[in-house]
Order: sequence, then structure tokens, then C-alpha cells
Amino acid sequence: MTDAPAPALDVRSDICWSDETSVTVLGRDLCTDLIGKVDLGAFAFLLLTERMPADAEAALFNAALVSLVEHGITPNALATRLTYLGAPESLQSAVAAGLLGLGSRFVGTIEGSAQYLAAGASSLGADADDDAIAAEAARIVDGFRSRREHVPGVGHPIHKPVDPRAEALLDLATSLGFPSVPGRLLRAVSAAASEASGRSLPPNITGAIGASVVLLGVDWRIARGLGVIARTVGLVGHLREELAEPMANTIWRTTDDSATRHLRP
Amino acid sequence: MTDAPAPALDVRSDICWSDETSVTVLGRDLCTDLIGKVDLGAFAFLLLTERMPADAEAALFNAALVSLVEHGITPNALATRLTYLGAPESLQSAVAAGLLGLGSRFVGTIEGSAQYLAAGASSLGADADDDAIAAEAARIVDGFRSRREHVPGVGHPIHKPVDPRAEALLDLATSLGFPSVPGRLLRAVSAAASEASGRSLPPNITGAIGASVVLLGVDWRIARGLGVIARTVGLVGHLREELAEPMANTIWRTTDDSATRHLRP
Amino acid sequence: MTDAPAPALDVRSDICWSDETSVTVLGRDLCTDLIGKVDLGAFAFLLLTERMPADAEAALFNAALVSLVEHGITPNALATRLTYLGAPESLQSAVAAGLLGLGSRFVGTIEGSAQYLAAGASSLGADADDDAIAAEAARIVDGFRSRREHVPGVGHPIHKPVDPRAEALLDLATSLGFPSVPGRLLRAVSAAASEASGRSLPPNITGAIGASVVLLGVDWRIARGLGVIARTVGLVGHLREELAEPMANTIWRTTDDSATRHLRP
Amino acid sequence: MTDAPAPALDVRSDICWSDETSVTVLGRDLCTDLIGKVDLGAFAFLLLTERMPADAEAALFNAALVSLVEHGITPNALATRLTYLGAPESLQSAVAAGLLGLGSRFVGTIEGSAQYLAAGASSLGADADDDAIAAEAARIVDGFRSRREHVPGVGHPIHKPVDPRAEALLDLATSLGFPSVPGRLLRAVSAAASEASGRSLPPNITGAIGASVVLLGVDWRIARGLGVIARTVGLVGHLREELAEPMANTIWRTTDDSATRHLRP
Repeated sequence: MTDAPAPALDVRSDICWSDETSVTVLGRDLCTDLIGKVDLGAFAFLLLTERMPADAEAALFNAALVSLVEHGITPNALATRLTYLGAPESLQSAVAAGLLGLGSRFVGTIEGSAQYLAAGASSLGADADDDAIAAEAARIVDGFRSRREHVPGVGHPIHKPVDPRAEALLDLATSLGFPSVPGRLLRAVSAAASEASGRSLPPNITGAIGASVVLLGVDWRIARGLGVIARTVGLVGHLREELAEPMANTIWRTTDDSATRHLRP
Repeated sequence: MTDAPAPALDVRSDICWSDETSVTVLGRDLCTDLIGKVDLGAFAFLLLTERMPADAEAALFNAALVSLVEHGITPNALATRLTYLGAPESLQSAVAAGLLGLGSRFVGTIEGSAQYLAAGASSLGADADDDAIAAEAARIVDGFRSRREHVPGVGHPIHKPVDPRAEALLDLATSLGFPSVPGRLLRAVSAAASEASGRSLPPNITGAIGASVVLLGVDWRIARGLGVIARTVGLVGHLREELAEPMANTIWRTTDDSATRHLRP
Repeated sequence: MTDAPAPALDVRSDICWSDETSVTVLGRDLCTDLIGKVDLGAFAFLLLTERMPADAEAALFNAALVSLVEHGITPNALATRLTYLGAPESLQSAVAAGLLGLGSRFVGTIEGSAQYLAAGASSLGADADDDAIAAEAARIVDGFRSRREHVPGVGHPIHKPVDPRAEALLDLATSLGFPSVPGRLLRAVSAAASEASGRSLPPNITGAIGASVVLLGVDWRIARGLGVIARTVGLVGHLREELAEPMANTIWRTTDDSATRHLRP
Repeated sequence: MTDAPAPALDVRSDICWSDETSVTVLGRDLCTDLIGKVDLGAFAFLLLTERMPADAEAALFNAALVSLVEHGITPNALATRLTYLGAPESLQSAVAAGLLGLGSRFVGTIEGSAQYLAAGASSLGADADDDAIAAEAARIVDGFRSRREHVPGVGHPIHKPVDPRAEALLDLATSLGFPSVPGRLLRAVSAAASEASGRSLPPNITGAIGASVVLLGVDWRIARGLGVIARTVGLVGHLREELAEPMANTIWRTTDDSATRHLRP
């Protein structure tokens, strides 16, 4: 059947097209309207929501990204540094290796918290009182507990009694005049989860980003993308330091020494 | 030898540390001095250079990032969309798959152009005249040609006679008052490469980012990181659209139909 | 606190250690006992179970791997080819990009089917009769349906009325004399799921691999690893062909043409 | 231009196609001719060379793969374990993270050694004497040294005075009756590089795999793929152990403690 005609490929994208002299992104001329006119955070907002942010939106969106860029020596920073040791010609691979750990245990919880905050805020409406919010929070916490799952967006192993990043981000949203329900719902979920578990589970930064995402109209299904963008910046920063003050080789050699010392003669 | 003591691990990082109530990044309090105070681009500048940018620096750095975020349906956008089809629970994996193609052929050329522009600008000094710059450009082009390598930072398959993004970024650097040598050297390399090859090889966006990186004091060895950061933003945008207007399944099915039609009965 | 002593790193691994003249893997000398003595599949079995396979086990394990190596133009083969286009200097990155799509929708279902088949076979015991197996299958299917999840390991969009790879693998296990319960339980789950959904949901290859994994004593939590190993082989094969008969550039250009044709003048 | 017809997609693949009842791989029926009939290594050989291996070829090919599967606590094993800590739901991501470090410094040197051994063996012919081989080796070593590059395939930080894996693999090729030139050329390169550098640079395992690849007719451009396949097996093995005897969390916490202790009050 070699002579069969090639099939037609019928797909559509509205993000960007270019010709010899211009690049158009969501209807805007990249070279005249965007380069030099918007910062990276505002441009990211455009791509994630299909509209330019108001000033308060750009401020909250940038702050949400900034809050998650850097948290020191994390497992993903280590994966990036160890990968760079073997493939220094491919910086992009080292960063990609670090991103791959942003799963269910750490940054991925943005997704889960954004999902329940979006659904909760939608069903509560903008004028919900504290009792309605507490009842919704109880329903959310019960749902996770009945599935024996952690409640995403609350609790942190280091930051106690509060996650200062979450407080900073939630306070900023308030001071910028955003609606209160998503943040209040997150605090109510924190209270309900703490009571149900008997442990202190304050709102954490992924929960606060989840609330921000709801306020900004970003689809919860891509909310984890904020963490991915932020951590990409942080991981490049770790490679900058790895070049000046390397640690990957030492970690490798010391781990090997430690792990196999019981096997050696 | 099971009873041998565990070895000491001796490494150092100056980027970030945190305790219960604070996170400190390069000497600044994340929650009080950075969240809500700096945009993502400025924070990235801090992490890549260990200092806060002046306003002009933040503007040029953000512009360099914005210029590379989006270029439509590229191979890496396709890799991201196709990966998401199989693993929608792992948005970070889809983005990482897209980043892995930022190698020697596309975005990776930032690194090569930043390297020769940094070395050239350093040896030329700030007051170089056009003749000195042209001589340096000839040396650079000869070097690549003698190794039978493409000259990074010049030439584009679509954008002719100029890459409008490169022009926008180089013009911005000029209007912000940055030194002229890196940009003039890039233009001289473009001229020398065009003459040597007999083809039009204008400064392209990766070359203009290379010049920007030199102006901003970013180490050329992590210059590719600007492309990685920028494209991460773009790839999350493509996943936003893939959810609303999917193309991955159609590409898969149509490619399979086309590729194997000569094998089918 | 700069003068604080470096902390001890205390970890343990029993897989492998080496000195100047030897490499020891799980107690065996790599150079004298393994290289040239065992095939790759048997060595993989050793690493996944900590024991050498009997002949029948090596045969079934190799067959399970072989069955999933190749399925033509799949989304992950396309991601690999498109990534290679941009980073031909990093073959490992192109393969990694392809692996990243082996998530919940395709190969990842090995994990889910191995999990319920392991639990079911364990509770049923080796002498279970058909009624007990049918009852267990009904429980399994009810569990997935109550959570509104697909039942992993059954159903295929192309292969109807049966997945011939699954039949070949299940038949091989029988002919090699392995216990029957995992395979019978998979068929019973297929029957129950088909009846409950009103659609034909035959055992598929990931279900048959799940049953094989149970028979071989591989922990279900790493069962997805069989798919990852198998597909790695297949993806390298696709890069071999991409070098001889490239398609990535054509897919890129045609997709771009198609996707943005409504935007062009 | 919304009404423009969808463009035709014209690509070709000869690897595999399938219909409802069969899967055909390079002209063979997967279910009747391959599953249960060939081991994974032999199937990999088929996909990388488009022909089934003779027995000696299958033996050497499997041995080349087996030799690189496992080398203990390596940087890529650590990247895999650290990634799994954050994303245990995506085993494929953890393996992919480990593969990304198989670049220019470690496994990637298969590619370089296969390239010069293939070119050298081809120009020398099958009957080359030791003088001709030594002259070719000198040319090869001079080439790398003139570019200030390491000679791939020789030298090892741990294994001295010889890499026992390389010796085992080269000996196997001899005992199986393969032609001698690629192995002799590798040894001559080792001698020339050792003399030129004044350091002992024995043939290492990536060099021996390079020689094997030449003997087996595998294109040097995909030779790194052997390392990628082998290490994938090893990395899944490390995840098996990580589940039973975890080290990632300890590495993270200890590294963080050590790295930032000079910053803490």
C-alpha cells in the first residue's frame, strides 16, 4: 500500500505564529509590544490565562513564583547538581533532572490544593461567612481522610508554627485587595486538618500558591506549572554555585564510602 | 568492616538556609524582603549573579527572558504535549521532556555565543573601535570555520533578513545605556560569517541574548539557563492550551497512519 | 558557626562495590561470574529480586520485557525523535524524554495491575477455585468503579477481541509450568470489567506483565520498571531509524503549518 | 485563512505496525516469533542492526550490556533515588533523571571511542599488522591531544592497572572468534595515550564496549544507547533497594546540614 496518499494532519494552536519579520503571541507583537515592555512574570501570566494581568495580578503572580524559587539544598537541587557532574555540556538536562522530583510529595501539592480551593470557592461564592467556610473545610478534610491521603497545602516539616512564606503570600493578597474566600478556606482547612489529626498543620506555601492561583483565574490543572517555573529559576542558580563551589563529587564519593563500607575488606 | 564509622560529609552552599520562622536567600529574608518586593526576573538575576539588579539591568534581563519564551509549535513544545498525553498526572515530566531538546541545535547556541562574546569583549576593552572589533570578529569566525562548526548566534531559517527579536533586544540594550561592544561584536561576527559563507546570517535571538548576558555579568557557562527558564514558561503555556485544544492524540494517530501505510495490507 | 564539624553521613547499599581489580554485584564477581555468563534479562532479574532466575523464570522474565519493547509510532517514540532533533549530542536525553510519557495512561498500568494481582493471588492462595477467583475479581472491579477509575490491565484501543501479546505471554507462563492463579485472576477481572462496563475489555499486555511479575516475585512497586527497561530498548531503536529515515523535522514543520494556518494572512 | 486545507503529513517508519490481531516488528510476528523465543538482548540487537544476531553476536552484545549495568553508588543512581523521594508515583521519572547524567564524562565516552575505533578499523582493514595499528593509534591520540580533549575509552579513576570489565569483555570477543583489529586498536590507543600523558590509561569499559559495537556492526552514533539500556536496568535495581533500604532522605538532610552549617546561628 506504499502508494497510499499521505494523510492530512489537522490540528490548531492559537498561541503563536511567526513570519520573516514578526512573531505574534496571543495577538500581540512580541518584538514591539512585549520585549522591553513586560517582565517575565507578567508574560507568564499572559500565557497561562490568555490575558494581560492588572497591576495587582502581576504583583501577586510574581510573588507566588518568587516564594517557591529557592529553599536551599533540596532533593531536586541535589539531583540537578549530580546530573551536571556527568553531563556538563547539557545544562538543560541537569535542570530537567531536578524538575522530575516535583511530584506528589513536594511541589505537586500545589495542584491538589488549587483543585479543592477552586471547587470550594466556586461553591461558596464571594460572600461566604465563616460558618459556611468551616463547613466546606470540614467536607474537604473528611474527603482526604476517608481516602487516607494527606491534605495538600497544609503542614510543613520545618516551618512551625507557621510557614512564613505562606503568611507573606496570603497577606500580600489581602493587602492588594483580592477576595478573601480562597485564603480563608485554606486557613479553615488548616484548622480542620489540625484538629482531625491532632498535629499542627498550618497553611504551607503550596497551599498559599493554590489560593493565589484561584484568585488569579489560573486553571488548577496547570497550577503545578507555577512551581515548575519557579524551581527552574532556582535550579539554574544552584548550577551557578556548583561551578564556583562544587559539592556533587564530594556527595558521590562520601555516599559511596559510607554505603558500601560494610562490604569492604 | 560493618562497624567502620560513617564518614563525614563536608560541603558548602551559600544560597539559602531556613529555620522554623524564616528563609534566607543570599543574605536577604525571603518573606520580608523578596516576596511582593521583586519580580521573578529580578529574583532570577539575583540568583545568577549574587547581586540585585539595577533598574536597567532588571529591564534588560527580563527582556532577554521574554524574547525566548515562545516561538509557536516547536519540537520541544510537541515533546511536552506528547509526554503529557501519557502522564497527565506529572506536569513536571512533560515540561522536562520539552526542555531536553534545548541542546546544540536551538537554544544551546546561547552558550556558544555568550562564550565568544565574553572573551572578545574582554580582550577588546570598552573603547574598541570598529576596526578592532572587525578583526576580532574575523578571528572568531575563522575559528568556527576551521573546526567546521556553525557560528552560534547568527542566522535563522525563518527570520530574514533580520531576526526581529534580536533587533528588539539589541536596541533595548542601547536605549538603556549599556556599553556597545558586545552588540557591535555580534554584528561584526554576523557580517564576517555572512561574507565567509555567502549566505545572509543576521544576528539571531540566541546571539542577542549572548550579548545581553555579557552586559549583565552572567557567567557564559550558565547562559543557556536563560533559555531554559524562558522555555519553561512557554511550555507550561502550551500545556494550558493542550488541555483546551488538544493536538497530541491527533499527531500520534496521523503520524502512525502516515509512517506505516506502506506496510499495511 | 563555620567551625562546626562536618556531620557524618550514614547510609547503606548492598548492591555493588568495587576496588581496583574487581566489581562485586550482590555477592557475585561481575567480571568472572556475570559478563559472558548471563544475558541482560537474567541480570535484570537478579537486580530486581536479589537472586538468579531459574531457567523458566529467565524465560518468562525475558518474554515479559520483549513483549513491551516496541509498538510502533507511539507518543513516546515521537517525543524521543523530536528531542533528538534539538540535542543530537545527548542521546540519553532523547531516550529520557520518551520514558517520561510512561505514566498513568500507558505503561504505568503495569503497576496498578501488578498491585491488585499480587494482593488477590496472596489472599486467594495457590489452590483457589474459579468461584473464589471470580468473587475476588468482582471485588477488584467494584473497587475501581467505585473510585471512578479505569481498571488497569484490561482493554486496548486497537487490539480486539484480544491483545495477542497478552495471550502469548499468559500462554508462555502456563507452558513453563507457573502457577495459574494470577493469570486466571486477570482473566476473571477482564470478564467482570467487561460485564460491568458493557464493553469488551480483554487482558492487555500490561495486565499480562502484571501477572508475570507476581509469578516471578517482583515487588509491584517496581513493576513499572519492566516497562521502562523494555521501552528504553525500543526508543534506542527509534533513534537508529531516525538517523537513517528522519521524521522529526517533517512532523515539526507540518504541525506548525497546520496548527497556525488560521492565523496566517 | 481559517479555511485552508490541512496539510498532508508524509513520513515513513519500517520498525513496527500492528492491527487488531498482530504486531509486526521488522518483518517478524512479535507474538509468535519473538515473545518466548528471544531474550531481551537479542531483541535489542535486532532493533539496533535490523537483523537477528548469530549466537556469538548475541553473546557479545549481551555481555557488553551486562558489563555496564551496575557500578554501585554513582551520581546517576543518586539522582534516581533523590528524584524518587519527591515523585514515587512516577518511577519512570526517577529512572529518566538518572539517565540524564550519562553525558560526556561517563557513559557518553562509548560514543567517542566507538567513533574512532570504527573509522580506524575501517581504514586499517581486517589484516592490519601491529605497526599499522600503532600508527593509527598515534594519529588518533594526537588528534584528541591537539584539541585538548581527553581520549575516550581509556583510563579509569578507580580501576588500576586495568579495568577488569574491559579485559573480560575484550577476552570474550577473542574467545568467540571475532576479528582482532578493534580490540588491538583500543589497546594501542591506550599505550599511545599513556605514553603521551605519562599516566597509566588502560582500556576502560566504555572503550571495550566501543570495540564490541564495531565488531557487531552497530552505528557509532547510537552506541551510547548500549550504556543507556544497561544503566536503565541498574537504576531500576537501585529503586528496588531504595524501597527496602532508603538513603535519599538521609543524603538530603545530611547534605543540607553540612552545606549550610556556616550560615546558621
